This record gives sequence, structure tokens and C-alpha cells, in this order.
Amino acid sequence: MSRQQLIEQIKVKRSFLCVGLDTDITKIPEFLKQYPDPVFEFNKRIIDATKDLCISYKPNAAFYESRGVKGLQSLVDTYNYIPKDILSIIDAKRGDIGNTSDMYARAFFDEAETGMGFDAITVTPYMGNDSVTPYLKYNGKWIILLALTSSVGSKDFQYLETPDGHLFETVIKKANTWAGADRLMFVVGATKSTEFTNIRKYAPDNFLLVPGVGAQGGSLADVCQYGITKDCGLIVNASRSIIYASNGEDFAEAAREEAKKLQQQMEMELEKAGII
Amino acid sequence: MSRQQLIEQIKVKRSFLCVGLDTDITKIPEFLKQYPDPVFEFNKRIIDATKDLCISYKPNAAFYESRGVKGLQSLVDTYNYIPKDILSIIDAKRGDIGNTSDMYARAFFDEAETGMGFDAITVTPYMGNDSVTPYLKYNGKWIILLALTSSVGSKDFQYLETPDGHLFETVIKKANTWAGADRLMFVVGATKSTEFTNIRKYAPDNFLLVPGVGAQGGSLADVCQYGITKDCGLIVNASRSIIYASNGEDFAEAAREEAKKLQQQMEMELEKAGII
Repeated sequence: MSRQQLIEQIKVKRSFLCVGLDTDITKIPEFLKQYPDPVFEFNKRIIDATKDLCISYKPNAAFYESRGVKGLQSLVDTYNYIPKDILSIIDAKRGDIGNTSDMYARAFFDEAETGMGFDAITVTPYMGNDSVTPYLKYNGKWIILLALTSSVGSKDFQYLETPDGHLFETVIKKANTWAGADRLMFVVGATKSTEFTNIRKYAPDNFLLVPGVGAQGGSLADVCQYGITKDCGLIVNASRSIIYASNGEDFAEAAREEAKKLQQQMEMELEKAGII
Repeated sequence: MSRQQLIEQIKVKRSFLCVGLDTDITKIPEFLKQYPDPVFEFNKRIIDATKDLCISYKPNAAFYESRGVKGLQSLVDTYNYIPKDILSIIDAKRGDIGNTSDMYARAFFDEAETGMGFDAITVTPYMGNDSVTPYLKYNGKWIILLALTSSVGSKDFQYLETPDGHLFETVIKKANTWAGADRLMFVVGATKSTEFTNIRKYAPDNFLLVPGVGAQGGSLADVCQYGITKDCGLIVNASRSIIYASNGEDFAEAAREEAKKLQQQMEMELEKAGII
């Protein structure tokens, strides 16, 4: 999906919501267990209930891998169920040397080979440009590089002082020399909203994928105040607060309600910024 | 596998060789294509030919994931074929927030769930202690944290100056406060052998997993000169130089020859260090 198509989707849907499909079989409603693949059945109903409210879905690879071969099959089926005009992100946080990154790119981008042709993949920067540039060989696909995460552990290394600013700032500056804002996004946690002003100095045009609104306590208003651009430039993810809004037969309706609340706030922010 | 069992294996086998199973279906001998699972057939024969010469096998997850569901099945079958007294490492380089790391731990350590119960997993440090500590819940399993890699991209961030030394040194010091040398190893590339003396100041007892001997040009003698400890403390990996030593029907014998050469050099180094 191109940057222009993504911006168009944001304007049409009046939303920059990404629904995180961190689907844990131990947390889904009991009645789904009667289906051949309860995880896929859950995702299918979540997608049906929210697809007019969001512009992206983001399955978290770990939740599927934790169930082995059958879990990977659920992921393939989920990928195929995501409407093609919605940005599909595989949250895989891969990062390895060049010839191995090539293989990860094939795993998630090469639909003919694996049944999965996601639009974007999350990547971790520790191994440098080897971890990033191999994915650029796939035209039209996005790399979403970890910069500043919403987790407690972000303070361990991401905030280290380096000669060119904090480590996460150095990561952003360097990575922006490897790829343009039409191919490269960054992960920046919503719990760090005061950092957004600073980050926009080095990443004025990049889309930022923002986890941490909802279950982790980040504020959507703060994220927009400091991070929104003329093209929006934000994809805000919520996972648990949407998909586990109810544990009963009404789980999909409850998910829709939560997604709707966020979409309505986003619509206001988009209007405030003059984007719609 | 415990540290004591690992050291015992090194002494018995007179080797600290890890064979990397980076099995690429486009590089294996043509005649294997007649088998139902050519990748597993290749690995099986490599394992049969080398298992008395090495103390570890390390499948690289990306090479299996790049073939989708059938690739993951090859990985499960390969795990099950690795003899139980040989350290099995899944080279997955995962790294995520706590609840997601829990899922990756389940994916690769929980045999009842996924058919895979590897002894060790490689992990990337960018997200801090979230990326490491969840794996400690599995007794007897190892975490192998990226510190200084053998790739070109290692210069991008790993060598950055931080208040407490280069980034890779800070990673080693910090991670050693989270787990002991009986659970935590570090990846240090063979191409950086002059750094080993320095690294041993912060990681005197940790085993180091050392890629980069062979195809990438690192020297085994240099690695041992600067990195060996009284318990050996080294696991040296070779992948392509062993498994692709021949592309013909003799590939397994050729792999054995290459493994044997390394084992013989390792035997000399172990004798020189007074370990055997």
C-alpha cells in the first residue's frame, strides 16, 4: 500500500486506528472453542465488527507462533481475511544479518511462498542497516522500525546518551538515511507523548505507529497534540482494550464500541488539524 | 541443559562447535527434492554426519519461516531429530514487551504446546529487560543475548559511545544484573576477536556464542586467544562453510570433513588451555 493510499484511507474512514490482533486462545470467549480454529474465528468476527472504523490490523506474530504449526495457519488465514484496502502489519520485531533478513522478508511479504503478503513489518534496529534494507527489495512494502517503545524496559537502552542524542534519536536519524518516509515508519509509544515534539524534528514526515493507548495508559489527545502532521502521520494501535472488551457472546459488539470511541476521538483530532 | 552438562559435553566431544542449520531449499542438493520434506531430509543427514563432532545445533528460524507452514513443520521435525544431549539453540533473535516475550518463550520452549523444546533462544536487547526476563521462567533454558554481531551493520549502533562504554558493553553489563552465567550467554562475532579481552572483563564467566568463523572470515585461533576461559566459555558456530561444503550426493560427508577440521583445531585449543 502506498503512502498516498494510506492517507486516503485515513480521510475516508476519518480514523487512524490500528486494531492489534494479539489473540490469546486463553482469553477468547469460551463458546468459540467449538469452532475448528477458535483463534481465526475470533479474528474474523473482530475484523467484521471493526473494519469500517480502522485503517490497519496488526497481528502480533508471537501469539500465533506460541501455538506452533496450527497457530501459523491461523495467522495465514487471518492475513487473508484482512480487507486489501486496509494496511496489514505483521508485528514480528525481526532483526538479523542481511541474508537472514531476506528470509524474514520472504516469510511475511512473499504471498506466493507462504500465503502471507503483509503490507508492513515491525523490525528491531540493534543489528543496523542489515536489519532494515533487505525489506526494501519488496516494492510498496513498509518497514516499521522500533524507536521508543511503551514498555518498562525502554529505559534500559533506548534512552542511553549517545554522541548524537538518545539512542532512539540516533536510530531515527540513521534509519532515515536508509529509506524515505514513503517506506519507513517508526514505533513510538503513546506513553512517551512529550517526546513526540522532539521526534518530529528528526522524523517530520514519517508515519509513527503508536502503541500504548488503552491498556497501557497513553493519551490519544497528547499523542495528537505533539505528533500529528499535515498528512496525519500517526497510526494509533489499541489491542487488548478493543479485542477483550467483553469475554461473552457480545465480544465483537463490545470491540466495535471500543473501536468506535477511539474513531470518534480521532475524527475530532483530524478535524482539529484540518486534515478532514 | 545445565552449564555443567554443557561443559561435560565439550570435554567428552573435545569440541565447542555449533553447526548452524541455515537450511535454504534453493541451496541443497537437487537429489533431495524427491523426498517429502527435502529440508528435513538435508538436516537429518547433516546431523547424522556431524553429531559426534559438535556440541550444539542452531537452526535459524528465518530459513524455516520463509517457507510458511511447511517450513515450520520442518523446524519441528528438525528439533525432534537433534539428540537430547546436544545443546539445541533456536536462532530467532526475538525481542518484545513482557507479555509478548512470554508467547515467544512458549513458542520455542514449551514442547507440549508446539512440539519444540529448544534449550536456548537468541534474543535482541533493544527493548530492555522485557525482552529477556520472561524466558527465565523456564527452568534450565538459556537466553543468548545479542551483544556484538559479526555483520556490517554492527557498526551502526552497537559501537555507539554511551556513558558506560560502547552500547554492546552496556548491554552486557546490564543484562548480567538480570540473570547469571548459568542462564545467560552473549553473541559476540568472531570478526571482532580483539574485543574479546575487553568483553571478558564484563562477562568473565558467560558462555559466548561466536558466529563468523568460516564464511564470514573470523579466526578460531584469535577467538580462543582472547576469549577462552577455564570452562571453555565459547560455542563457535559455523553454518554455510559446513552445510554447503558440497552440493553433490556427498554433501553429508563433505560437511563432516569441514566439521572435523574445526573440531580438530578446537581440540588443540582445549588442550592448550588445559581444559582437556
